Formats: sequence, C-alpha cells, structure tokens
Amino acid sequence: MGVSVKKRICILGSTGSIGVQALQVAAAHSDKLQVVGLAAHSSKDMLVSQAQQLDVDDDACCLTARDGMDALLRLIDSTQPDIVLNALVGSAGLRATVATLQAGLTLALANKESLIVGGNLVMDLAATGGGQMLPVDSEHSAIFQCLQSGDVPALRTIWLTASGGPFRGKTREQLAEVKAADALAHPTWSMGPKITVDSATLMNKGLEVIETHHLFGTSYDDIKVLLQPRSLIHSMVEFVDGSTIGHLGIADMRVPIQYAFSYPERWPAIADLSIDYRQLEGLELGAPDTETFGCLDLAFQAGRSGGTAPCILNAANEVAVAAFLQDQISFLDIEALVASALDHFTGQIEPLESIEQVEVLDVSVRTHVANLL
Amino acid sequence: MGVSVKKRICILGSTGSIGVQALQVAAAHSDKLQVVGLAAHSSKDMLVSQAQQLDVDDDACCLTARDGMDALLRLIDSTQPDIVLNALVGSAGLRATVATLQAGLTLALANKESLIVGGNLVMDLAATGGGQMLPVDSEHSAIFQCLQSGDVPALRTIWLTASGGPFRGKTREQLAEVKAADALAHPTWSMGPKITVDSATLMNKGLEVIETHHLFGTSYDDIKVLLQPRSLIHSMVEFVDGSTIGHLGIADMRVPIQYAFSYPERWPAIADLSIDYRQLEGLELGAPDTETFGCLDLAFQAGRSGGTAPCILNAANEVAVAAFLQDQISFLDIEALVASALDHFTGQIEPLESIEQVEVLDVSVRTHVANLL
Repeated sequence: MGVSVKKRICILGSTGSIGVQALQVAAAHSDKLQVVGLAAHSSKDMLVSQAQQLDVDDDACCLTARDGMDALLRLIDSTQPDIVLNALVGSAGLRATVATLQAGLTLALANKESLIVGGNLVMDLAATGGGQMLPVDSEHSAIFQCLQSGDVPALRTIWLTASGGPFRGKTREQLAEVKAADALAHPTWSMGPKITVDSATLMNKGLEVIETHHLFGTSYDDIKVLLQPRSLIHSMVEFVDGSTIGHLGIADMRVPIQYAFSYPERWPAIADLSIDYRQLEGLELGAPDTETFGCLDLAFQAGRSGGTAPCILNAANEVAVAAFLQDQISFLDIEALVASALDHFTGQIEPLESIEQVEVLDVSVRTHVANLL
Repeated sequence: MGVSVKKRICILGSTGSIGVQALQVAAAHSDKLQVVGLAAHSSKDMLVSQAQQLDVDDDACCLTARDGMDALLRLIDSTQPDIVLNALVGSAGLRATVATLQAGLTLALANKESLIVGGNLVMDLAATGGGQMLPVDSEHSAIFQCLQSGDVPALRTIWLTASGGPFRGKTREQLAEVKAADALAHPTWSMGPKITVDSATLMNKGLEVIETHHLFGTSYDDIKVLLQPRSLIHSMVEFVDGSTIGHLGIADMRVPIQYAFSYPERWPAIADLSIDYRQLEGLELGAPDTETFGCLDLAFQAGRSGGTAPCILNAANEVAVAAFLQDQISFLDIEALVASALDHFTGQIEPLESIEQVEVLDVSVRTHVANLL
C-alpha cells in the first residue's frame, strides 16, 4: 500500500466564513490535504484554536493586524504550500495574490480585490509565474468547471447567474426606504454583511462580471447576467457549437472550495448535497432589472473603461456600503455615490501598472467618498 | 501555412435523418472533414446524388439492400476512415458496430440496437479493440460532454432528461383512444415515425436508459429520468462532490453529430443555435408518469435482468410499434405486447455471448409477437 502525497494547503483568512469552511473541507479530507499554514486578520483566539486542532506550528500562523503583511508573505514562502487559499478581505488580499503567483504556486482565489483592483497585472503574473489560478467564488468555479468540457477559444457567451437579491421586484420608490437590516435577511447564501448588501444592489454581480472578464479573458459583450432566483444554477458557458454547459446544485460554498483543492479530481462532498431534480417544479429564468438596480451597469461601465476604473468602483462601493450598514445613507445613495466617484475620477483612469498605483488611488477614492457622506 | 489533416469520415445510413444531417455538418466543415464512404439501405438515387456532391468514389458507396452486409463491412475496411458514423437502422447496425470496433476505429454511434442488443459484447470490444465510442444520440452526447468535467468514478447520478412525449398528461383511458397520427404530431424534435412512437410511450427513454448503463458503466439505480418538457436540458451528470453538470441548448441533432466529429474540439455550429436564456421564463422539471406510461419501467426491468433481456424488449417493441403505426393495435397494446414477450421469454434470458445468439433470439421474439397481433 503506497503512501499518497497530501496536498499542502496554506489558508489565508482562516477565521472568516470561507476560511472556516475550507478548514472543514481539509479536516474531512485529511487523507488528501494537510494544512501547513494559517493566517487571519485579528481573531487571535480563533486562530490559536484552529492551529491546535490542525496541528499547525506557531511559526506557521500569522495575525496580519499584529504581525504585518511582511509576515504574511514570509508565511507563504516558508510553509512551502502546494495551494494557497486566499480568502483575505480587502486590499491585503491583492498583495498575497501577487506573492503567491510570483512564487509559482497554485492560488485558490476567494479574494475579490485581487482581480477587481489587480486585473491584468494579476493575470499577467499568473501567466508568467507558472502558478495556476483556481477560482473559489461559486459562479467562477462553476464557469471553470463548465470550461472543462470545452476550451476558451470555443466559448461564445458566459451566462453569469444572479439570484436578483432580496429586493428583486421592488421599485426605486420602495428601495429608497429599505434599511441595512432588510438586506441582511437574504436567505439563499450565508454571507458577510458587505457582500449581502452588494448582493442586494447587484454590485456583487457587477464585481463578478469584472472578475469573469479577467479570469477567462472574456469580452464584456460576451458576459451576460442571467436571473435565476433559486440559486440552483451557478452559471453556464455557451460554446460556439450550440452546446451550453451549466453547473447546478445546492448553494454551498464548500463545493467550490473543495473543487479548488481536489482539482482536477472530484472528491465526495463532506455533507449531503445530493438533490432530487424531479422534486423541483422548475427553474425560473429571466433578465436582471438593471433600470431599478443601477450598480450592475456601473460595474460594466467601469470594466469596459478598464485600467484603474474598477479600483475606483470598488473603493467607492466599499465606503458607501459601510455607510449604509451604519444607516448613514440610503440604499439608493450607494449607487449614487459610486456613480459620482466614477464621474469625479474619470480623468484619472489609467492603465494598470503597479500595485502601488492602485493602492494610492484606492485611498484617494475612499477619502473623496467619505467626504461626500 | 500548414495543411491540416482532415478527419476521414465514413457514414453508414447516409440517406436517413441522421445521415443527411451528418452530411450537412461535413459539407460545412469541409476544411476539417472528408467523407470517404457512404452506405445506405435502399435509397439508390439519393445515395448516388450524395456521392456526386461529396466526390465519393462509386467503390466507396454501398447499398446494403442490394450489396449485402459483407459489402458494408468491406467498405469500412477499404475506406480507411478515422471515424465511422453508424446511423444504420436495426440489427444491421450491430454488425457494423462490431466491425468498426474490431478494426480499432472511432465509432460515432447513432444505431440504438448496437447497445440495446449488443450490450456488454459491444462495450468489451470497445475496451479491447482500441477504438473509441462517441455517442451521437442527443442525451448520451450530453452526458459524454458533461463527463468532460469529471470522471466516471466521481459520478453519482445521471439525470437523463425526457420531454414526456406528446401524450404527457393524458390518462390511460385517453391513451386507449390515441392513434398513430396523434403521436406523429410531436413537435420538439424532427424524428422518424418509429422513434416518435417510442417517445410517446416513453420506451425511447427506456432504451436510452439501457444505452446509458452500457456506455458509461452506470448502475441502473444511478440513472434517473427527469421530465423536462421543453427539451432544453439534454441531460445532466451529478458528481459526488455536490456539483451537477448539465448540457443545455436548442434541440438540434447536428449538435451531437458535429461533436462526435469535432471531439475533443468544438467547432462553430452550422446554423444559428445561440439562445437567450433570459428570454426563457423558466425550465419546468418533474418526474415522468410511470404509472400511466408503463414502457419505461419495462425497460428498466429488462435492463436489470441483463443479458439477452433488452434484445427481447427491443424486438417486441419494434413489432408492436409497427403494428400501431398501421392502426392494427391500440397505443396501450404496445406496452402489453412488450410485457407479454418479456414474460414469455423470461426463461430464455441468457448472458450475452455472441451476435448470432441475439440475432436468433431477435427472430424468435418477432415471430412470437407477430403471432399475437
């Protein structure tokens, strides 16, 4: 009986929602996966507890709020992982993405900023560094899985599915009145508050459009958003030959997380995720209401502008959503602030050249939007 | 500029519905495909015309009704094709399948009898002969395409989709009164009369279940029939990790035909088969009504019995459907005759050992059922 080699996994953002689910996957597949490094922002007690349970050395744990980004980058280097799961929140994630790809490691990417802000800089690194990028977001993992049945040159349209969020069907008059607490009641996926609001404004889908563009090299004209309120279709790829390959299933983030770890294999799910499709009455499909929910078109606009425009979009949105969550502004103000920031900084949209460039711009935009509150 | 090597295609059954569509595909992709052999049953004028249009030698054309099966087998041998499309109707197709696989050639399989009657004999040949088998049926091509995104050991359930046929929703009292002309009005796919009646009885889906079992080595417990009346989902594969990969699109036989020719590539469709999924209101899903339509369970029963049982099922069904098409028997008699034949021959169900064995049994069953009419 041979000893199979375990994949060495380094988990950045281990105390967040994705990180915790990744550790569940790793624990259930401990014959195939070994967690060799853990990083979190500031949840020290939880990180220590995780490290004890998984037998991870103190040296291989990092608390970025205390140890700093350099410690995180040393962690990636010193733990010699096969796969780095980047589930960090915010721009720290971009630095980790760059370091992982520069080291030629496989990157399981759950950090949105890496592609929204880093865009072609990150994709160029992935292409030249020798590392592979495996998407962990539900929709992008679905697209990646569908693309196993055909290659990118044969791709015609990516159908990015969207639930429509908790406010689907509301008018703008009604939206003017909704509060953060209403948005946070969204039942389909269990998510953090920021992404839940993004789901309600459709900005989340807009950010995913930009990520899709970068991940698969797809032109914005060939990315179409498909409303699918039950979140059972996680996206589809239409090929030039008339075949559409779709990914369906119960909405559970452990599926894309595990696929990034198991790829190109598939391993048994760690929970019962089987589904009797005969019991579903049907799958409702439609178009998103982009008149009522303006953020999706703003994201397309920023994506098409390219360069640093998505960085502006993202920074403005983060400040606006944080203000909405504190009931400082109305729901519709989120869209208005993002549009205003894109307008204000339109003359400063530049080709992407460096991480430092977007970090500086990010701060400028946040300051600008904060002053508008 | 290099000269790309064209795939050499031999088309058996070129004057039938699948054959004609295959020639459309070949003509549209004449830079990649060369038709090197044609065989038909008895439509001489049409065969001659096809040969002239495609510049196929007289020597490379065969009319089985006149030249006999030996000429067909010589054709496969002499034309040195890369791919043999077997779109013959009936048991002649089984002989051609065996010859193709014995020669180690790639078989694009549209002949149902090959797997229904030939079963593990044919699959063993495919495994040992070095030839590859590519399914041309819509559902099996869909499953094959979905399996590009995961391998057979990771397969949990095959969701074989069914439109439910033109009589979906009818009661058995109503079915007792329907005529062949009613069945032939089925709009979704353009098919021959035999398969159209099979679609109405759900026997077509039952035969596909047996083919699925053989093609993918799937246990009957793991093959489930999913009702999808609009025929936009062509089947799905559910994997152990909670991912289901489905194949969707406009129902057009040229898609699976072309995929068998282009595999592992995908080429542009020869007609506009793009689809705006946002314009669909939804995809209705459900369970087939196996109480009202008994043939599906009969096929599962014959499949589970294994060996020569599917040969009995198939032969009885063919005689019964032919009688129904001539208004000799009622719609419900088809099911009754098949059940009766399975019952009558139950003691003669044997492991599959040779083509001759099933050919002899086939004749016995046909004679028996004809005597019951």
